Parts: sequence; structure tokens; C-alpha cells
Amino acid sequence: MAVEQLAGLSLIEGVATKGGGATFSGYNPTDGNALEPFYTSASVTDVEHAVAAAVKAAEFLAASSGADRARLLRAFADGLDAAAESLIERAMLETALTRPRLTGEVARTSGQLRLFARVAEEGAWLNARIDMADPSRTPPKPDVRSVLRPLGPVVVFGASNFPLAFSVAGGDTASALAAGNPVIVKAHPAHPGTGELVGHIVNAAVAREGFPAGTFALLFDAGYEVGAALVQHPEIKAVGFTGSFRGGRALMDLAAKREVPIPVYAEMGSTNPVFVLPKALAERSAALAADLQASFTLGGGQFCTKPGMVFVEEQHGRAFVETLRSKVAAGGAFSLLTAGIAKQFEHELAERRSLAKTLGAERGEGHAAQSVLFEVSAEKFFEDKRLSEEVFGPTTLLVQCDSKEQMMAAARGLEGHLTATILGTPEDLAEHAELIRILEQKAGRVIFNAFPTGVEVNHAMVHGGPYPATSDGRSTSVGSLAILRFARPVAFQGMPQFALPPELQDANPRKVPQLRDGVLAI
Amino acid sequence: MAVEQLAGLSLIEGVATKGGGATFSGYNPTDGNALEPFYTSASVTDVEHAVAAAVKAAEFLAASSGADRARLLRAFADGLDAAAESLIERAMLETALTRPRLTGEVARTSGQLRLFARVAEEGAWLNARIDMADPSRTPPKPDVRSVLRPLGPVVVFGASNFPLAFSVAGGDTASALAAGNPVIVKAHPAHPGTGELVGHIVNAAVAREGFPAGTFALLFDAGYEVGAALVQHPEIKAVGFTGSFRGGRALMDLAAKREVPIPVYAEMGSTNPVFVLPKALAERSAALAADLQASFTLGGGQFCTKPGMVFVEEQHGRAFVETLRSKVAAGGAFSLLTAGIAKQFEHELAERRSLAKTLGAERGEGHAAQSVLFEVSAEKFFEDKRLSEEVFGPTTLLVQCDSKEQMMAAARGLEGHLTATILGTPEDLAEHAELIRILEQKAGRVIFNAFPTGVEVNHAMVHGGPYPATSDGRSTSVGSLAILRFARPVAFQGMPQFALPPELQDANPRKVPQLRDGVLAI
Repeated sequence: MAVEQLAGLSLIEGVATKGGGATFSGYNPTDGNALEPFYTSASVTDVEHAVAAAVKAAEFLAASSGADRARLLRAFADGLDAAAESLIERAMLETALTRPRLTGEVARTSGQLRLFARVAEEGAWLNARIDMADPSRTPPKPDVRSVLRPLGPVVVFGASNFPLAFSVAGGDTASALAAGNPVIVKAHPAHPGTGELVGHIVNAAVAREGFPAGTFALLFDAGYEVGAALVQHPEIKAVGFTGSFRGGRALMDLAAKREVPIPVYAEMGSTNPVFVLPKALAERSAALAADLQASFTLGGGQFCTKPGMVFVEEQHGRAFVETLRSKVAAGGAFSLLTAGIAKQFEHELAERRSLAKTLGAERGEGHAAQSVLFEVSAEKFFEDKRLSEEVFGPTTLLVQCDSKEQMMAAARGLEGHLTATILGTPEDLAEHAELIRILEQKAGRVIFNAFPTGVEVNHAMVHGGPYPATSDGRSTSVGSLAILRFARPVAFQGMPQFALPPELQDANPRKVPQLRDGVLAI
Repeated sequence: MAVEQLAGLSLIEGVATKGGGATFSGYNPTDGNALEPFYTSASVTDVEHAVAAAVKAAEFLAASSGADRARLLRAFADGLDAAAESLIERAMLETALTRPRLTGEVARTSGQLRLFARVAEEGAWLNARIDMADPSRTPPKPDVRSVLRPLGPVVVFGASNFPLAFSVAGGDTASALAAGNPVIVKAHPAHPGTGELVGHIVNAAVAREGFPAGTFALLFDAGYEVGAALVQHPEIKAVGFTGSFRGGRALMDLAAKREVPIPVYAEMGSTNPVFVLPKALAERSAALAADLQASFTLGGGQFCTKPGMVFVEEQHGRAFVETLRSKVAAGGAFSLLTAGIAKQFEHELAERRSLAKTLGAERGEGHAAQSVLFEVSAEKFFEDKRLSEEVFGPTTLLVQCDSKEQMMAAARGLEGHLTATILGTPEDLAEHAELIRILEQKAGRVIFNAFPTGVEVNHAMVHGGPYPATSDGRSTSVGSLAILRFARPVAFQGMPQFALPPELQDANPRKVPQLRDGVLAI
């Protein structure tokens, strides 16, 4: 569909619906002007309609094969790639993200869909297990078989900062569908046009691949009611969310208070501590400073993996800090994603100015923000918890430590983060062995000599981490392990072959790996 | 240690502690008499002490190999087997469970420990994943590796109805330790002597195998304060619980309200619906009735897997009901586990008598209870939610359906249960294909032609199920999958070999299966 055809309506059972209530629009962050069309919020009736359709589709999906779902996900991916140009154009307008960044994001999004297609098709994730009967034992040993089964309708909240990769057909949608769950997406209002374009691509694929129309729905809302109604709906079985701590925690609390609580997988951001060690500082402080500056300002500093606090030993870090300061002073201005984010950034910078020394430049014009570098002593850092909180935007905080011991104490005092980074030589690392042990308890990913803003989509990636980085540190929202969030094991005992899910049958018609009496058979 | 040496004290860092506050004792359920010695509740200081020791031990455990932990778990198992006679004697006194039942429970408990020893040793559960670097890609692909790592100190609550298998060295303790977490057990006050005996066996093994004393602690409490303090302690990372819905939900709520919420794995009981289908009723109603009666009265009906509601089509079930009624009328009396359980059973029976027709016998003398069979129409069953609630004790409820459709409606209306059972011929099953699809959404285990009270400990078992059967339907508390509850994935990016956990090193010194670039290598 062309951008001119955008209708501003929610998509339920494959059809645009009238909705009700408030209207809203996307805005161009570079000039603050509203973008056509207006979007109509979904109504309570729309929520009921979307959930009822998802419940119906859940049965079909639960019976579908991994190969069927792989076809569907690949059809999404092909559709996105074919429409890349219009998606990029619209997303540029709505987010002010650059063309190269959005080109990469389309590829990342279709790549994620294809990764989950392979995972669904291969079926190892199902953890199919067969413990054979033994009638000779006393009492006779029963035949017991278990496999991961889908949860049912899943609600996904699109993120402001990834209009494609963490939105309508992003990682949560891909992993929930790969596991066999229908998905209802609550679109992020900051990029509704991009969302609608993707929604039509998904719907076309759903229809073409013969899946029920309730497999997917896309709901718009100017406010919070639609999201809250979805999370509280008795037929919704799980929630995926990427956004702020406040938003994520509110959803966690709503879900915990339900008559039947459900899992909420909320990725709520992180300050991503970086530890710069002495020998690396001696060897290559200029390069480290340049790379750090590039990382904390990438995408306007609006990544949940932005390095937001940097620990150095003061006596080793002087050249590094000086280079960083000059890099920041020479840095350009950044258009932030929305007026709300820009305002919040300004507010948080004001607070930070009252708590720490400003080393870098001040705010730019309009919605444009310049990067700001702050500095604080470790003592001060320990005293004020606000200094370890995330500031979303192009800023970072240098924490000056007077000793290795003080740096270790800072590491031990960390809350949960998505990532923790060590910049050092191998010798540094050997001398700071304890640091790795501490950091693996604080983060989902521990990085050596790279910057956290790159998140590879693969089998080993963990984009998660202990609370408050996420609601559930036992999970990841990026990489193939993400599929495990949306399934539960079910055992079948003494069941005749014909009544078993195909993945548990002896004939194994779907050719999935089976663990037979504890031994893996493929 | 001999029963005469029981001291009635909590065990922290391997040492008996004085405690503080209220004292209590076990009781002999057959006569209501207190059993020596008196037990002293742990104090707030004891809680702090036990947690601090566990935090220290957590580092050691996180670095330990699966083979090391396997040795520890096997030492527990050997110790339990060696002390079987004194454990059985004491548990008989404290619980009135029979010698054969407790003999089986010792074997089950040591068997569970050995199962988790094998799981820890083999290391497949760790899900070690390696995605190799590719410097030729643009941008260069980093080396990313992930593995499941322990959570940290875990609190386990002993269960009233399994003094061994779900208590001090039971399934939760075994799986949490196998995953590398220290464990603090809050003993169930109904069988403190059995708990203390097991505690000493565990401590002796911990010391002998060279693990730190903080690896394990056992705390006694007359009330709820110690348990609540543990669940709210910032250094506690997860909770395992087997018990009542009220108790489990209270722990869930406490954990959700923490500044840093933690996972609670609560197995909260279940009514375990049974569907008896027409052709089986025609072929073997007498045998089905006899087996059902044996199952719902097994262990005094005090299993969380007791079949507590039985759906039949009235026109096919007359002979079955008549046999069941006569079996129940001829049934003996059962000593319930505690005076509290006996009182609660009496209270719930009184309510049930007001809601359903009584087909069976009335209550016995003292703490002894006779089995009671109730009957109700499906219409009545649909009207009153209380009829689908668990009644802990030797009773079950027959639900008379007027048609297949009504029976299917009853299935669709079920809440979450640990198990759901179908008794039928293969032909019955084929004619009720929808029933399996419904029940797999309602239960952790779907059983054909067997009774739910037997729970096999193996790789495929799922002893879990949707809320309210458990707090987290994505998990099981029995079988090797239970280990997954107490771990989280951590990724390491660009890390030199020496700084990686051994399970992620190329040399793979611990010989665990590794998924390399998506392909399993063993």
C-alpha cells in the first residue's frame, strides 16, 4: 500500500475499523508539524473484537506446524523488504531517524523474522521429551511425553525508538507468532503511519498464507486505555513491552493484580555501565573516547543499550576524559524522537546539572538536542541514586574513581542492567577477574572491548537482565531464545499416538529433535 | 543422628542456632499429642545470618562445576537412604502417613536428588550457545556466547503433605542446588523432627564434599514471620513453595510488591478434573470406580493431584456411580496430616454438604476422617464456583452431565489445574478429540486411562499448570525441567577464553553440549 492510502484506522480481523474516541497524529520531530492522516483510537468494542478473533485463531495456530508458521514469518519478511522504501520514508518523517539507520532497521526486522522462521521450522526449541513406558517395573512406568505449547493471545506494545524492529512486526511479534500465539499489537503513537504500513503487510501475508484473520491485529490509541484493557483482558495470556521503566512497571502491576496473573516481558531500559581499565587507557585512550562518544550519541542516544555511566580511575583517565570532552564539544545536534522525549530529556538534564559537573555542550534549538557529558566523583555517585538512573538521549556520566577498590565497590552496588561493558587489555581483565563475576550478576550481557549499542540478533544473544532493566531477568527479547517467553510445557501421559501433538508421536512427522529417555534423537 | 538427639533448633552455616520467639512442636495426628522436642522459631537475626551466609556461598556455587554439584546431591541421596529407617519412623509419628508410603517417599526423594545430579553433570540444561565472530562481515560480527547462570540464594518452603519429597531436601531444594544456587529452607511446622533429621544429613554432606556452610540453611518458625522476612529480603532471588492457594498467593503478592520483584514458583493445589467417557463406562465401570476410589483416598486424599471432580454423562454412568458409592461406603477412616487440615476439611465438607448431595459416609472420630462422595448436576456446578474449588482430604465430587455437549462446556469452563484425566476407550478419545485440545490449555499434564495421583519423576514430567494451580504455568516443580526455574541466561561478548565460564570456552573442559552457530555439538 502507498503512503497516500493510509487510513488512520486500527486493523482487526484483517479489516480497518472505525474505532471511537480521541484522534491523534504522528509528528515530524524536526519541525514539530503534525503528519497526515489523523489516527482514531480503538474503542472498547474493538478490544473485545480483536481478542475474540485472537482466541479463535489461537486454536488454529496451536495446531499449526512450525513449518507453516515459518512460511508466515518469511512472508512478513519478504513483504517488509519489498516495501522497504516506503517504510523508510515514512519512518524518517515520523522519527527523524536517519536513512542509513532505518535501512539497517528494515533489514534487521526482516532478518529477525527469518531467524524465528528457522527456529520454528527446526523445532528444537519445543524441547520435545519422551519417557517410554516400562510395564515390567513395579509399579509399571507410564509413557510420559512433554512439549512446549503456545500460551494463547499475546499483546505486544510497540516501542518509540525502534519503529520497525521493536514494533508491529518486531522481535516480540516474531517470537510470539513463531511459538504459535496470535498477536495483538498496540501501536506506538509516535510512528502510527509506519505501524499502519507494516500492519497491512502483515495482514496481506496472513491472508495469503491461509492463516485465520485473527492471527494478528493492530490497535491505535492516543492514550493508555486500550493498552490497559488488553493487559487486563482475561483471554490475554502474556505481554511483550519495550519502553520506559514507568510504563513497564505499570503493566507489571496491572498484570500482577489480575484475577489470573499473566507474565509481562517488559524491557524497561538500562544505564549500561562501562568500566574503562588502566592499561587500555594508557594504550589507546583517544580511540576509546572517540568510540564511546559515537556509542552514547548513536541514534541520538535513544537506545536502551546506550552507555549511560562510565567508570574510570581518575589518575589513569585524564587523557581519555580530555579527548571525550573535546569530542562532545565538537558534536552536532540530534533530533529526538518525539516532543515528549525532548521535554523529558531537558528535564532530566536540568536535574543532572544540579548533581554533577557539566563537561560538554548545552541544548540546541527546537527539538534538536546537543550531547552533554557529565562528571561526578564516585563518592557523590554513591550518595545519590538519581545519578545511576537512565537519561534517555545523547548524554553520559563519567564517574571518577580514586582506586580500583572504589571501582569494584561501584560495580557491586549496581542495579540490574541490560549490558555491562569492560574496556581493557587482556592483562587488565586478568587483574580485574572479580569484575566479570560481579557484572554477570548485574547484566544480561557482559561485553569486552566493544560498545553495547550494537545488539546482534543470533542464538546466543541475551537482551535482558535483572530488574529494573527488565521485568523478568530469566528472559531475552532479542535472539532465538526469545521464543521461550511465549510457551509452556504440557505433559501427556498414556496418550495413544493419534491423540498426541505430532511433535510427540513416535513417527515424528514434523521431524523435530526428541529427547528419548534422556537421550537426544534428531 | 538419632531421633533422641533432635535439638529443636534452626541450622545456619552448619550450626544449630538458639533462635528466639515462639516455640512449637510436632503433633502425632492419630492422638493429637505433642511430640518432643520443642522447636524454637528462628529470629530476625537468624534470617540475616542465613542470608548473609547464602550470599557468600553463592559465589562458590556459581563457580562450581555440574560434576561438583552432582557429588553433593548424591551425598544427600546416600545420606537419606542410609537414614531411611529413622526418617520413616519420625515421619510416621509426625504425619500418620503409612510406612509403605514413606518408604516410597524416601526412595523418591533420593531418586530425585540423583536425577538432578545427572542433569547437573551432563550440562545440557545450561543451553550453552556460541555464535562465532566473523570479522569479514560489515560491520564485523562479534563473538557472542551465552549460558544459564544461577540466580543466587533461593528460599524453599517445605510442604505439609510430603515430609521428604517436597520438603527440606525435596524437589525444589534439589533443582535449585543443581542449578548452582544456595538454598534456605523454611521447614514446615507439621513435621519439624523429620525436617531436622534431613537438615543434619544435608549439612554433613555439605561439609564432607567441601561446599561452604552457607550452601544450605534450615529455619523453623511457629508462624509466618520468618517466611515473609525471607521472601522480602533483598538478597533472596527466587522462591519455591508447595502448599495452599492462600499461602502461595500471599507469597506471590509479597514478591510482586518488593522493590525488586522476584519469581515465586508456588504449586498451590488443584482439583484435577476427570472425564469418564461412555464406552469405557460400558466396558469397565466397576474397575474404573474402584480405581477412582483408591486414587481420591490415597494418602488420605491429601495429594495436590487428588482427582477432586469427576464428570460423567448421567445416562452412561449409573453402574459406575453405584459401584463408587458402595466402595466409598465401605471405605475406612483416614488420619489427616494435622489438626488444622482436619478442621479445615470438616469446614469444607460442611459447605459442600450445603451445595451438593452426599452419597458417601460421614466423618470419623478424633482426627480420623472418612471419605465422602458428593454428587451435583452440571447446571448446579456451573452456578456455584465453590464447587470447583479444592477440598484437601478424602473426598471427590461427581458432576452429572446430561450430554456430551454439557461435558465439553464443563471442560471449557475449567480454571488451571495440575492435571486433567480422560478415562475412555481409544474410540471414546477419537470421538472427544476436542476434549484433549481443551484440557491441554487447562492443565500441566493430560492423562489417559490412569489416575493423576502418581507423579513420575523423569525428563518429560510436568507438575505445573496454569494459574491458580501454580503461580507460573511456564514451569514444573517435578522432573528434570524443574532446574530451569532457578537460572537465567547471561551473554558474554568478545570475551577472551580465560575470562569465560568454562562451559562457554572453546576447549569445553566441562564437556557440556554447546550449540555452535545454531548446530548442537556434544
